[in-house]
Parts: sequence; structure tokens; C-alpha cells
Amino acid sequence: MFGRIALIGIGLIGSSLSHAIRRGGLAAEISVSTRSQETLDRAAELKLGDHYSTNAAKAVEGADLIILSVPLGAMGAVAQSIKGSLKPGAIVTDAGSSKASVIADISPHIPEDVHLVPGHPIAGTEYSGPDAGFATLFDNRWCVLTPQAYTDKNAIEKVTKFWTACGSNIEIMDPLHHDKVLAITSHLPQLIAYCIVDTATDLESHLQSEVIKFSASGFRDFTRLAASDPVMWRDVCLKNRDAVLDVLSQFTEDLTALRRSIRRGEGEELQKIFTRTRAIRRDVIDANQD
Amino acid sequence: MFGRIALIGIGLIGSSLSHAIRRGGLAAEISVSTRSQETLDRAAELKLGDHYSTNAAKAVEGADLIILSVPLGAMGAVAQSIKGSLKPGAIVTDAGSSKASVIADISPHIPEDVHLVPGHPIAGTEYSGPDAGFATLFDNRWCVLTPQAYTDKNAIEKVTKFWTACGSNIEIMDPLHHDKVLAITSHLPQLIAYCIVDTATDLESHLQSEVIKFSASGFRDFTRLAASDPVMWRDVCLKNRDAVLDVLSQFTEDLTALRRSIRRGEGEELQKIFTRTRAIRRDVIDANQD
Repeated sequence: MFGRIALIGIGLIGSSLSHAIRRGGLAAEISVSTRSQETLDRAAELKLGDHYSTNAAKAVEGADLIILSVPLGAMGAVAQSIKGSLKPGAIVTDAGSSKASVIADISPHIPEDVHLVPGHPIAGTEYSGPDAGFATLFDNRWCVLTPQAYTDKNAIEKVTKFWTACGSNIEIMDPLHHDKVLAITSHLPQLIAYCIVDTATDLESHLQSEVIKFSASGFRDFTRLAASDPVMWRDVCLKNRDAVLDVLSQFTEDLTALRRSIRRGEGEELQKIFTRTRAIRRDVIDANQD
Repeated sequence: MFGRIALIGIGLIGSSLSHAIRRGGLAAEISVSTRSQETLDRAAELKLGDHYSTNAAKAVEGADLIILSVPLGAMGAVAQSIKGSLKPGAIVTDAGSSKASVIADISPHIPEDVHLVPGHPIAGTEYSGPDAGFATLFDNRWCVLTPQAYTDKNAIEKVTKFWTACGSNIEIMDPLHHDKVLAITSHLPQLIAYCIVDTATDLESHLQSEVIKFSASGFRDFTRLAASDPVMWRDVCLKNRDAVLDVLSQFTEDLTALRRSIRRGEGEELQKIFTRTRAIRRDVIDANQD
């Protein structure tokens, strides 16, 4: 499918891409780049690529497809560092969780003869780093692409075929709309999980040990999410700030109303809320998401 | 272990108890009672008991162990209705999620020659009703008992042996302390899950369908919790109100601080929060809860 693919960033997503590319025979060779020598050495031990460099500019030389899987806050700097080394006709894509910021940060550095097709594979686990990857991470998961009106159709098609070959289902979306949808489905749950677990870290230590002991009653599910990569999520907060603050504000309103109903002992109202949420669960199951 | 066990309430917990009692041969016979004739008929179809009645007073006649697995709001009325039919020396226990309220609601109705040993099996699924039960629900789960200082030691021991035979590990706790710990580990996560899913029900319908479509990114985990029994959770809010409001207020403070850090773009602070939550996850895994 491609001659050379450059993976810039070799964490959970980058390493999973390496496995998926190998599984599908999607590239003749893979070059891997990451800033840390230690991580790069580990990637080499795991044989995730054919060429390795801590210099992203060197890694993209001769690459037909460049995939940026670095934290959102590093996207701009990486794009700037590689802009002089991109092959004419190359396609740059990314795996960032927010799309408007990626477009704003990357596109100024993309030469005219290179195509930018921003993307977001909606897949992940709570693990991170090059050891965390596996070939089936993207199977049957959505990958959202957010090309712009003027993006080369052929480049969009190539990226679509690539992600399809990695196992994903493709959805084309407006970047701002993507950021709003993901703020609700992903960023809000993640931040709430961090917040619940953080509330528990504030407890006196004997109470904290009991919370851990009895975590199976619900709390445990949140600790899994709250183990996710801190830098990635820091950057989501900073880079998708407006959409995130907007849903946090809606959530806070709803929580305030719930607290008031509890304080007032409004049994009927509580039962009504707890009943209508069941319908959403049914819809999720019907949508084959579970 | 017991001659006759009476199961008052035959939802997820009651029906699971029936299966666990049969599995362990823990009673010569089981009598089942629930208010609704339809549910009782279903329990009979499922052969969950040996005797069936919509009249709880009739069901407890001759029973050595009576287990109340009804919503918290129904505990007092059930206790009142059975008080004249309890056999001298019988043991009454329950499976309610809050303990101070159960003791306050039930104990006034317990005759002097009957023993009350309040309990809470920390086990469940998002399903409810007599079809939802299964024998292994309590295996390797905690069951908290909250007897009072004057409770008969022999009765506590019998209830301990019973739950141990159902597969549970036993913890003895002060009722108010139980209510505080569970408010954090169970009630808070549950209410937050309801609230997140409810926030999604407020969205315009096209956005809602996208939230469902992309629910795999985190939101889905919350919909499972939010499918739990509305009446049970309404009663938890009403009956463990003080402890629940207290943790909701701590959580809201933490959420407000998180929102402020996002609004202010405080990357270091965000990363610090998201990092310290990882330690809790490790502790949970170390405690063999996952």
C-alpha cells in the first residue's frame, strides 16, 4: 500500500500501528521516531520498525505516509521540525484526540505539495508506551477523518484505505463537530473518572485503604480510566479547552440539580432521572458498542 | 445449615441467594415472598423457592433465617408486617446498601427473642429482577455485617457462616462507617454515571445519536452503571442522604478546581492530578480487586 511509513511517536497508538501495518503488509518499511532515546531503544528491541531515529526530520525522509501519534501539545513542534524533509506528494496524518487544534498547529507547516488528512482513531486502553501496542487495537473501531474542503481527494482515499486495512470503520466529520462529540463521549468521562479517583486520594489514609478494599462496588471501573496517560490528557484539556469546559459546565448543572433533588428528598424526580438513563444504555447496546 | 430460609424480595440479590443456597445446600427449604404477583409467579417458574407468597408475614412463618432483599425504602414496612410471625430465636438479616437507615427502620419491629444482624453483600450487576440472579454472584465478594454491641454472638456467627458458604468474605463494620465508605466507593460513582448519561439525554437528537455511535471512547462504561435499578438507587439517595451529599460536595469541590485549572490552562497542575490518580489504580490492582 505504501513504500515507507514514518511513525512519529511510538506509544500505545504508534506501536499498535506498527503491529497493524505488519499484520496487513501495508508498508515495505517502517521508520520510527520518538524524542526519548530510551523509548526508541525499547521500540527497536520490540522490532517495531526498520529504521530508528530520535530526529523526526530524518525519520520522515522518503516516507509516503507520516503518522503523528504524539501528545497534542507536541504536534506543532513536530510539524515544524519535519516540514523541510517531507517528500513531495507525501501524506501527513495524525492520531490526535482533538482535531481543530491539530489543524491549527500542523497545517501552517505543511508544504503545498504535501497533503494533510487529520485523523482520530477512537481506540485505546489505559496502558501507554511502546510495550502497550497490539495489532487488533483498531479492529472494528471508528476512525474519524477531518479533511478540509480543499484536501486532495486521492489523499483522503489513501488514508481511508489505510485505516480500513488497520481494521477501522471510517467516518468523515467537521473538525469542530468532532471536538464537540468527543468532548462528551470521551473527554468528559475521562475527566470525571480522574476527578472521582482524585477525591479518593484526599481521604484520610485508613478510609482510603477501605475505599481500595471495597472498590469492586463501582469505584474500580473509574480507576481503570484514571490510569491513562497523564500527558496525553493534560494536552486534551489544554487543546480542546472550549468544548471540554462547555460539557463540564452542562455536567455541573445536571449534577447540581441532582444534588438538590437528593437534599430535598425528591424521590419521584430521582427515579425519573435514573429511569430515563436506561434508554440510552439500550441504544448503546443496539448500536453494537457493547 | 438452616431448616427454612425466607427470602423477602426476589430481585437480583434475592434470586442469586436462592441459587447460592441451593448450590451450597444451606437450607432444607426456601420460602419466597415479593409484593408483586407477577414477579412471584416468575420466581415460581424459575423454581427459586419451595413455598411462595405475596404475604411476607406468611413467608417468614417457621423460618430460621429471614433475608430482606427489598429496596431500602421498603425495609421498615416489611419489618412491621412480619414482626408478629417471626419464630423465637430466628435471625433477620438484610442486603441493603445503607446500614444506619436499615437499623433505624427495622430494629423497632424486631421482637426481643429474634436477632437482627444487618448485612450488605457488595456484589451486583446492572440487571434486576428474578431472572437476573446467579449462584456465583457473591463468590469472592465482600459481605459487610454491621451488628450492634448487644447483638447475639451466636447469631452473628451463623450469618457469617451463611455468607461464607455463599462465597463471600466477611467484614464487620460500624454502620455509619459503612455508609461513609460505600458513599465513596459505590454511591458516588453510581450517581456520577447517572449524571453523565443524563447529560447526554439532554442533547439535540442528532448529537445524541453520535454520542451513542462513538460511545466506545469512555461513555459506554458509564451507561452500564446507569442501567441499574432506578428504585434501588432512588432509595439509596433518600436513605443514605447525608453521606451521599457529603461526598457529592467533596467531588464538586474537586471538579470545580479541575475546571478552573482547565480554564486557566494550568498544564502542570493538570498533569499532577492525572499522575497521582495512577497510584490509586495500582493499589486497587494490588488489592486483587481487578
